[in-house]
Amino acid sequence: MRGLYFDGNQLRYREDLPQPVLPAGEALVAVQAAGICRTDQEILAGYMRFHGIPGHEFIGTVISTSEPELMGKRVVGEINCPCGGCELCRLGLQAHCRDRTVLGVAQRDGAFAEYLALPAANLHPVPDSLRTFSAVFVEPLAAAFRVAEQLPIGPRSSVAVVGDGKLGQLVARVMCLNGCDLLVIGHHPAKLKLLDRLGIRTALESELAVRDFDFVVECSGNPTGLDLALRIVRPQGTIVAKSTYQGDKQVNISALVVDEISIVGSRCGPFKAAIRALTRRLIDVTDLMDRSFPLEEGLVALDYAAHRDALKVIIDMQISPAAGLHGPGEPVMEIP
Amino acid sequence: MRGLYFDGNQLRYREDLPQPVLPAGEALVAVQAAGICRTDQEILAGYMRFHGIPGHEFIGTVISTSEPELMGKRVVGEINCPCGGCELCRLGLQAHCRDRTVLGVAQRDGAFAEYLALPAANLHPVPDSLRTFSAVFVEPLAAAFRVAEQLPIGPRSSVAVVGDGKLGQLVARVMCLNGCDLLVIGHHPAKLKLLDRLGIRTALESELAVRDFDFVVECSGNPTGLDLALRIVRPQGTIVAKSTYQGDKQVNISALVVDEISIVGSRCGPFKAAIRALTRRLIDVTDLMDRSFPLEEGLVALDYAAHRDALKVIIDMQISPAAGLHGPGEPVMEIP
Repeated sequence: MRGLYFDGNQLRYREDLPQPVLPAGEALVAVQAAGICRTDQEILAGYMRFHGIPGHEFIGTVISTSEPELMGKRVVGEINCPCGGCELCRLGLQAHCRDRTVLGVAQRDGAFAEYLALPAANLHPVPDSLRTFSAVFVEPLAAAFRVAEQLPIGPRSSVAVVGDGKLGQLVARVMCLNGCDLLVIGHHPAKLKLLDRLGIRTALESELAVRDFDFVVECSGNPTGLDLALRIVRPQGTIVAKSTYQGDKQVNISALVVDEISIVGSRCGPFKAAIRALTRRLIDVTDLMDRSFPLEEGLVALDYAAHRDALKVIIDMQISPAAGLHGPGEPVMEIP
Repeated sequence: MRGLYFDGNQLRYREDLPQPVLPAGEALVAVQAAGICRTDQEILAGYMRFHGIPGHEFIGTVISTSEPELMGKRVVGEINCPCGGCELCRLGLQAHCRDRTVLGVAQRDGAFAEYLALPAANLHPVPDSLRTFSAVFVEPLAAAFRVAEQLPIGPRSSVAVVGDGKLGQLVARVMCLNGCDLLVIGHHPAKLKLLDRLGIRTALESELAVRDFDFVVECSGNPTGLDLALRIVRPQGTIVAKSTYQGDKQVNISALVVDEISIVGSRCGPFKAAIRALTRRLIDVTDLMDRSFPLEEGLVALDYAAHRDALKVIIDMQISPAAGLHGPGEPVMEIP
């Protein structure tokens, strides 16, 4: 099959990749579209020491499964595949199973290919009304909903989101649903403008006055984001850490103790909530779609996605470069 | 009056210190005994840039106050003195008021002297049955109860306490009250033995197997304690940070995100709970008392307290060096 393959050093487009072999309980999915995430770029830089096909945000069609009700369905999929038998799995912490594989991230080929395999239990059918490219956002949007699942952020809370990139945009859109007092802090006027249009207050970091936020969600993807978060969270407030990056970060632990700050790590979240929010049109993601590329141009797509002004870049399996025209995706998407 | 005075460089015993001046609402307390805390040693090393009389763990007798019901009472006292008017005070975060003074720690003379002043609202009378030296433990024991106040640690929780020193000992004794599965990890066999005698499981760090604790309370007073805590906390588990120390600490934030670990800073706690636990004899602290010294020998006392095997060292205002004999304190205390 066709796909992008990372050998630990280099990412290559290949047409000779073997189709996934299906263990019992797994389903074969023909990928329709896959999103590029910052984590993919970290992986190409050595994060997780991954070898194989990257990509973990996708929508596709189930073409082989032992679960009849999934056959032929348009699905999105949770990326963590736990062993099911260890102590952590028995405690209900399957997403943290130490023997888990993770789609396109750890020990499991991912979505930048024609086909992928996932346990049938990981798949969520999406309603027909949810368009293909919007459905690609389910995985990162679920990660944004994870913040709401972990913490009692409510209508009286003051919340800052640090970072105006793809994840910050989604977290801000989830946070604003609960009526809280919300400010998004970023470095990119064009990205902040997308939020202004939704009635969400924004500020450039340079123009920010000191504030005492109850919650600060750190989505900047940058170690300095945590420093900002520590400056603007109130005593006894909570910082949600969503950014992963290589290397350690210097933290003043005494300040954390004296001010009784909490830092809470936050990763993957509830897919069903994300699907509902998109289907109910409570969250619209069309303004976050940047460009789509055919699979053959996956390397160009990843390069483009690394640009500081890029938003969500999508690999669209339904177009070929020869076509030269956009496929049946979202109207705001453009072929570069 | 007599007392120990730190000028920013050196601690000195002096007999010419002025008695505290009482602003409206404050009470004058004749100190009976004061405990030496690790924070005092950090302060002498430059922490908080404190100048003045250190000391924040004490019991004394109220000798001047506008509150008739406090007059003549044996009291212990909360150390944070908030402004009462700022935004944080109005939010109920008085202990985090940015204009607060803190007894013997920030902008307020402390307990290593004959007299101290505190707002009457900070004082808690102690029952006659609570002996003098035990009452000195109310402040650090309240800090230990703070952990139970902040987090839902319960009978089904698995809890590790990192550190077998003074604070670790108190946290362990509070944690064991709720029936949880508890392990204390330390470096000092003699200190761990005190906990063994209470039926609390202990381990030397060197003999520790990897474990998945729900909660890890870091009381080691040492930056490496956090590294250990991160190794033994389970995914989605919580680390309570109670140690303060100078300088930053390197933390792998990505690991925190991926494993969804929380780090919660924890400082001062509920005095009434600490008084009740001591009065009900649910917590006994006599085995934690090391030696007492007269005020005149305060510098020797602080030196002695810095020794790695030392437990709680108390400055006893009721004895003079000339007496050469122990005063009316706890029988386990010895004059060196």
